[in-house]
Amino acid sequence: MVRWEGGARERLQAAALRLFVERGYDGTTVADVADAAGLTERTFFRHFTDKRDVLFAGQEEFEQSYLEPLARAEGDAMSRVLAAVDAAAARFPDERRPWSRLRQTVIDADPRLRERELLKLSLLSEAIAGRLRAEGVEPVPAALAAENGVAVFRIAFASWIAAGETRSLQDLQAEVLARLRSLLGA
Amino acid sequence: MVRWEGGARERLQAAALRLFVERGYDGTTVADVADAAGLTERTFFRHFTDKRDVLFAGQEEFEQSYLEPLARAEGDAMSRVLAAVDAAAARFPDERRPWSRLRQTVIDADPRLRERELLKLSLLSEAIAGRLRAEGVEPVPAALAAENGVAVFRIAFASWIAAGETRSLQDLQAEVLARLRSLLGA
Repeated sequence: MVRWEGGARERLQAAALRLFVERGYDGTTVADVADAAGLTERTFFRHFTDKRDVLFAGQEEFEQSYLEPLARAEGDAMSRVLAAVDAAAARFPDERRPWSRLRQTVIDADPRLRERELLKLSLLSEAIAGRLRAEGVEPVPAALAAENGVAVFRIAFASWIAAGETRSLQDLQAEVLARLRSLLGA
Repeated sequence: MVRWEGGARERLQAAALRLFVERGYDGTTVADVADAAGLTERTFFRHFTDKRDVLFAGQEEFEQSYLEPLARAEGDAMSRVLAAVDAAAARFPDERRPWSRLRQTVIDADPRLRERELLKLSLLSEAIAGRLRAEGVEPVPAALAAENGVAVFRIAFASWIAAGETRSLQDLQAEVLARLRSLLGA
């Protein structure tokens, strides 16, 4: 990271997303993105490994936003995962919703990007399950707790970015969780 | 499908899997696969769209093996999805286990193949949820029932292909489901 490029990363992300929406993902090159952000390709590649990475950078930070509250949470595996999912919703404040909506539009339009998005969530699920196993939780309950936590996030997130939705991600997750409990209860 | 190529599809799949394991996925070409199966590239492309498709062909049939029992099942959305998952386990008899193990080895070794595998399961989940919505189930419970059904399959399947595992997929799914109920019950 170079000090005088302050904000370069964010400028590149904003420019890329705008171009992906306007010209399509395939119709946009790294050079186009750098140009639109008023930066060089060299600078682009200091921040991202390739064009796709603009949409998927920050996997480790994404996982940490779940693993940190998971480490602090108490109770059984499922309760802890759900507490972590609840805490991680803070990553998506309302001001981020327009960006998330646009990003999803771009991803939904390209099967390769959809696959990459699924990998992102699958890696999150594996990271959570791996942490639980490291603490002695058996593999099947660890995987189930992680999969359900990620499913609650994914389903609530789809509602959160739907047109006209105004409720917070945290509230939507709480609703999805309540439905999950009632579906599997009794 | 051409009558005198009977078995061509299966021969191509077996040859491809063997080569992927021996030489790696990237080290194997469509020409290699056709050669090893004693067939032409032209025949290969009558059965598969590309090299990757050898590992992922049959998505529609895969989805149908869930959607058909889903249509016959009775009860609420969750019970019906779980009945469908139980019935679809018949797709994976014990004699298929060695093939499934090898296939997973190949997929786990390549992030692009892992992404494609995730898409396969995500498409299944969407197909199940879509069918439920078409019958009047609300979107969130439809998605939750579908996601949980697929999670039960995925987690049980990982156990089924683990080294030394001898229980049937159906039995393993029943165990995973029992754990799921106890995790979310109370």
